[in-house]
Amino acid sequence: MSSIEIRFISKDDMDTLDIGLQEAMDAIELGLKAHGEKKVVMPSKGHLPLAFPEKLFNILKGYVEPVNVAGVKIIGDFHNNYEHNLPSELALLTLYRPETGAPFAIVDATLNTWMRTGAVTALGAKYLAAEHPRVLGHIGARGTSWYNVAMMDLLFDFEEIRVTSRRPESRERFASEMSDKLGKPVQVKATTQKAVRDADIIIDASRLLEHQVLVEDAWVKPGALIQAYGAVLSVAPSLPFSVDKFVVDDWNQCKQSPYGQFAGLIQSGELRDEHCYGEIGEIVAGIKPGRETQQERILFWHKGFAISDIMLGTLAYEKACEQGIGTVLTYYKNPRDM
Amino acid sequence: MSSIEIRFISKDDMDTLDIGLQEAMDAIELGLKAHGEKKVVMPSKGHLPLAFPEKLFNILKGYVEPVNVAGVKIIGDFHNNYEHNLPSELALLTLYRPETGAPFAIVDATLNTWMRTGAVTALGAKYLAAEHPRVLGHIGARGTSWYNVAMMDLLFDFEEIRVTSRRPESRERFASEMSDKLGKPVQVKATTQKAVRDADIIIDASRLLEHQVLVEDAWVKPGALIQAYGAVLSVAPSLPFSVDKFVVDDWNQCKQSPYGQFAGLIQSGELRDEHCYGEIGEIVAGIKPGRETQQERILFWHKGFAISDIMLGTLAYEKACEQGIGTVLTYYKNPRDM
Repeated sequence: MSSIEIRFISKDDMDTLDIGLQEAMDAIELGLKAHGEKKVVMPSKGHLPLAFPEKLFNILKGYVEPVNVAGVKIIGDFHNNYEHNLPSELALLTLYRPETGAPFAIVDATLNTWMRTGAVTALGAKYLAAEHPRVLGHIGARGTSWYNVAMMDLLFDFEEIRVTSRRPESRERFASEMSDKLGKPVQVKATTQKAVRDADIIIDASRLLEHQVLVEDAWVKPGALIQAYGAVLSVAPSLPFSVDKFVVDDWNQCKQSPYGQFAGLIQSGELRDEHCYGEIGEIVAGIKPGRETQQERILFWHKGFAISDIMLGTLAYEKACEQGIGTVLTYYKNPRDM
Repeated sequence: MSSIEIRFISKDDMDTLDIGLQEAMDAIELGLKAHGEKKVVMPSKGHLPLAFPEKLFNILKGYVEPVNVAGVKIIGDFHNNYEHNLPSELALLTLYRPETGAPFAIVDATLNTWMRTGAVTALGAKYLAAEHPRVLGHIGARGTSWYNVAMMDLLFDFEEIRVTSRRPESRERFASEMSDKLGKPVQVKATTQKAVRDADIIIDASRLLEHQVLVEDAWVKPGALIQAYGAVLSVAPSLPFSVDKFVVDDWNQCKQSPYGQFAGLIQSGELRDEHCYGEIGEIVAGIKPGRETQQERILFWHKGFAISDIMLGTLAYEKACEQGIGTVLTYYKNPRDM
């Protein structure tokens, strides 16, 4: 065996790679399909809570057969990082050869996480929204929010985009930058009700410290798609039961991981197997139908899973190799059997 | 916030650092003490099984208060890597600041794992062996075995060291190299019985593919310490019940993690809380006594935990900074709140 090398791809390298919204969505869609077809290995994510929910590491691991790559992402979720002028989510993804376990890439996954989450949001909308959605209501203005809005607008070219978030300065900045990026107005709303009520698609990307209802059940109109994925319950707890279809990304992980939007309802025994319509991967793979009528209310909960990280990380790695971007490190010069 | 930098410490850098056996044991001992005093956060390790037991990743995570470092180790366990002339265990440890979750070190943990495992074996013997042990019987001749034998011999200066392993060429090589290193004979035995029967300290570092009894209960004499830590049961299943004290590294992890020497006995409900005397950290911290008579038979099962990886990784990082060893990578040039 010759030396083992690892390509390190920094945050700045990721920016240079400039992965397109469409190619990211394409890669993630293949990952969802692989998940639906059970061509993955993915135990539930793990957690290292220093203080929940404001200081926490999430550890996501998996293997995706179609790309033949194993990977582990370690991502911090540190709510007060803005005080240090840092993103709350700093992340590293390491990729491994499944034949030997040898690492071959270390990829910044801060940007990746936002992008892969946005892609799952957008693909959720692609498969679960009613036809021709015109109005998007979005809660949250950090990290993943950029990609949620940009990717869905690429798919649907919305007539109206409304956003809100807890801190006025961050929602103003988000709306202004997003408006420039999309070349269309993005409306800032002072309350979640004004932002999401009767929207065709409601995305709740909030990051609460404790439970609060940001989206009332009655604000979700017939035909609407709502997605909520914060670690703390932020929508009406009635929603998983009152909607026509409750869809998740990975039901096993939803049941295993102790954190997440509806984790409390699962732990209390209220939210059970029979309430879950299916997984987005099954719908992408054509195993189960997605939306069947224009009047259905659908709730999609994506906790986020390793499959998406591995798909996007593998894409970044391949592009970095092609373009000669990143730092090639010698991990092990003369490995030998020990 | 200025840029975020990560120091990458390769396998070859680790060799250059040349961490001493005694300083490694000292660092690990502090980690065991912190664990005993509950100055750690350590959920159970996680696993990514591609094919059990021969193709598996173990994922260990934790935080150690006395050094104020969080860390995650990802370690492959690929039994057939010798066919690629690779060690079966290739590992990466990443270290993080607990205030922000920012990564600051990526350390090869292949060598670290062997060394920290050897240190826990040796410290287990320090606290649990009878006085003046003269005879060591050792099963296994790869990776951790080197440090098991070298560190214990540093503590006890054995009169007799017997080793065996499955493959003749690997036990012969091990004995010959270890003999050179220690400057004393190391005896090669063809059977496990010849290697371990009536030894003062028995170490079973075997890596079986399926259950097999390599150490019979009757071969463990009164006063002996036996340690077994392979992923598959390799000693008489009666041992945890028949010994005077059954000690582990972390009982919660022993119960949570589905793999390991006695995991099957726990899952079947046979091996329960009341059978576990205590954790090595409690003994190191002086919370519980270790060995109390020279006639006790003691069994110590260390599954291996993140605390040790973080302690040794932090030591390696500090030495690397002092000596200017490793590659300093810019992870994030101009981080900002997003």
